[in-house]
Amino acid sequence: MNLRIPGPTPLPPDVQQAMGREMVGHRDSVFQKLLGEVMAQLRHFYQTQSDVLVLTSSGTGGLEAAIVNAMSPGDGVVAVSCGAFGERFAAIASAFGGQVERIDFPWGSGLDAARVARALEGRDETDLLLTTHNETSTGVLNDLAAIADVLGSLGRRRPLWLVDAVSSLGAADLPMDAWGCDMVVSASQKAWMAPPGLAFIGVSQRAWTRMAQATCPRFYWDLAAAREYAVKGQTPFTPAVSTLFALQTSLLRMRGEGLAVIVDRHRQLSKQLREGLRELGLRLLASDVDASPTVTAVCLPEGVSAVDVRRELAARHGVVVATGQGALKNTVLRIAHMGYCSSVDIDRVVTALKAVLQGRHDC
Amino acid sequence: MNLRIPGPTPLPPDVQQAMGREMVGHRDSVFQKLLGEVMAQLRHFYQTQSDVLVLTSSGTGGLEAAIVNAMSPGDGVVAVSCGAFGERFAAIASAFGGQVERIDFPWGSGLDAARVARALEGRDETDLLLTTHNETSTGVLNDLAAIADVLGSLGRRRPLWLVDAVSSLGAADLPMDAWGCDMVVSASQKAWMAPPGLAFIGVSQRAWTRMAQATCPRFYWDLAAAREYAVKGQTPFTPAVSTLFALQTSLLRMRGEGLAVIVDRHRQLSKQLREGLRELGLRLLASDVDASPTVTAVCLPEGVSAVDVRRELAARHGVVVATGQGALKNTVLRIAHMGYCSSVDIDRVVTALKAVLQGRHDC
Repeated sequence: MNLRIPGPTPLPPDVQQAMGREMVGHRDSVFQKLLGEVMAQLRHFYQTQSDVLVLTSSGTGGLEAAIVNAMSPGDGVVAVSCGAFGERFAAIASAFGGQVERIDFPWGSGLDAARVARALEGRDETDLLLTTHNETSTGVLNDLAAIADVLGSLGRRRPLWLVDAVSSLGAADLPMDAWGCDMVVSASQKAWMAPPGLAFIGVSQRAWTRMAQATCPRFYWDLAAAREYAVKGQTPFTPAVSTLFALQTSLLRMRGEGLAVIVDRHRQLSKQLREGLRELGLRLLASDVDASPTVTAVCLPEGVSAVDVRRELAARHGVVVATGQGALKNTVLRIAHMGYCSSVDIDRVVTALKAVLQGRHDC
Repeated sequence: MNLRIPGPTPLPPDVQQAMGREMVGHRDSVFQKLLGEVMAQLRHFYQTQSDVLVLTSSGTGGLEAAIVNAMSPGDGVVAVSCGAFGERFAAIASAFGGQVERIDFPWGSGLDAARVARALEGRDETDLLLTTHNETSTGVLNDLAAIADVLGSLGRRRPLWLVDAVSSLGAADLPMDAWGCDMVVSASQKAWMAPPGLAFIGVSQRAWTRMAQATCPRFYWDLAAAREYAVKGQTPFTPAVSTLFALQTSLLRMRGEGLAVIVDRHRQLSKQLREGLRELGLRLLASDVDASPTVTAVCLPEGVSAVDVRRELAARHGVVVATGQGALKNTVLRIAHMGYCSSVDIDRVVTALKAVLQGRHDC
């Protein structure tokens, strides 16, 4: 099967095998070494000297953890959104009592940093800024370097900056410290090539300081407790041990390949897929400038159902892709190229899609 | 290795293998079938016609989900506690704004239903009653049938009843519907013989009704969303797919053995271990009446360090047990017999402990 949905992504064979390891206790030395190694590797890919903590949850749990640790009810929140996951991040902040102002960009476009700057400058105070690095619903990579510049110029009025990097980190460049991100969330089943069940959260020193005052109720997501336990190579609650074994294995693979090479490979895969889709006469949802290195959204010809094409791709060609989300559900296909993916996989997707679309044309 | 801690517990070989299965998409038919089957099996072991939902988190996440879905800030909560996990359940309710009255019983004792009844009758109104079925920190199984009787006699003043069954369900009898439990939480890495990373929560009709009014903020734990997705064989957020494959396999094993046989086997294992420990001249923390079928806490002789004995058991005999919790940390060992455990495993524990204690005596 050629699993080309934007997570869970395919497991390399050694990662798959690592899932089948004998269980160990989570208060034992084997586990302490495991967690310590995984956290150190995550810091490398996050390009940070700060803590990167591991939570047992999906990526959305990681986003909730960021909000409830950083926010107090009533806090002013600016949420930048250009798709379903930007909306979700904003919805979480609203659910926990944030006064959320959304800055929306059209689905398929990336954010415009100048507009974000104007919005921030026009407000009395903003406690939190929420951004999505890679918008999985539309295949857009937002220019967060530009946001880093905007925040750098705000001085003392700078909000705490929370980044959803669930479907970018490990495949795209996101230097947390250099860009001054305060909380950065990712998840195991995306570019990290491990099964779902673990979220990661990088936390800056500024975020730790803010957290001490933040009053949203929290228990399972309490990052202060997570840090306290992490120092001794443990987690406050029983972690997904097997998934950590898998992640340890995939992180070693990633170190072997190297971050720069990984980032370049993903860019190349995106380019290859976009060229292949254009050759089929299809329109791409995002521009080349906004294009995501991990997932590509392609518009199908008028009258062709994405749900039907998706079904045929799976049934006849063993290629599993995703349909669009929200209003794009039946007009867009999303094809992922994150993590364990080669140019051969992309070639197979394009060839299969060509066959399915020609088959429909012949009917 | 003879992993005898109260979770994570050892994996049967076929469960271990199931973890290494190829990844599948969580919106695909394979997954829909998987989740549907797992939920049906869980309902069997919960002995309920109600929903049993699956969350990607540890058991503590499941307890938090119960609280934030059932409770509004300011609600009156009675929390019955006889150990660390009873305290944790109460602490979660407090963290989210519950007005918590704790009814504490000594560590090593079970609850006294008459005292709980008097406390409930002496209060104006109680919104939630929290109880722990199996107190993992002390090896005590609480008599929840007696609590069911107490609640049955309260009529309209009956609180919503939340049960922590993390370390009992799947090994002990807990007929959710017959006893009238409203929310019952368990977790994959305990008697269910699967890796950690999944929590389960059974939800009564009364609980669903209450939930519609409960105002604690929630997003990741939103059970109404989980139920809405469960109807179509899905989860709102990416679930721990591999762990669900493992759980599917272990549930099939459990159905093969049968609930009554499983419950009896655990009682026998507890009895065998307690007799073996008494023959070593050791005192058991819980009485025979209160004794847990899944974990046994044993007091070490004066001056013998539980931390040291634990280390020697692991290093010399490959037997991994847990020390006590809280004040019992260095005086008590906790030995688990939940899930994948046979009388041979128990025999090995007792033999190894005998050797370690004799070795210390000889020094």
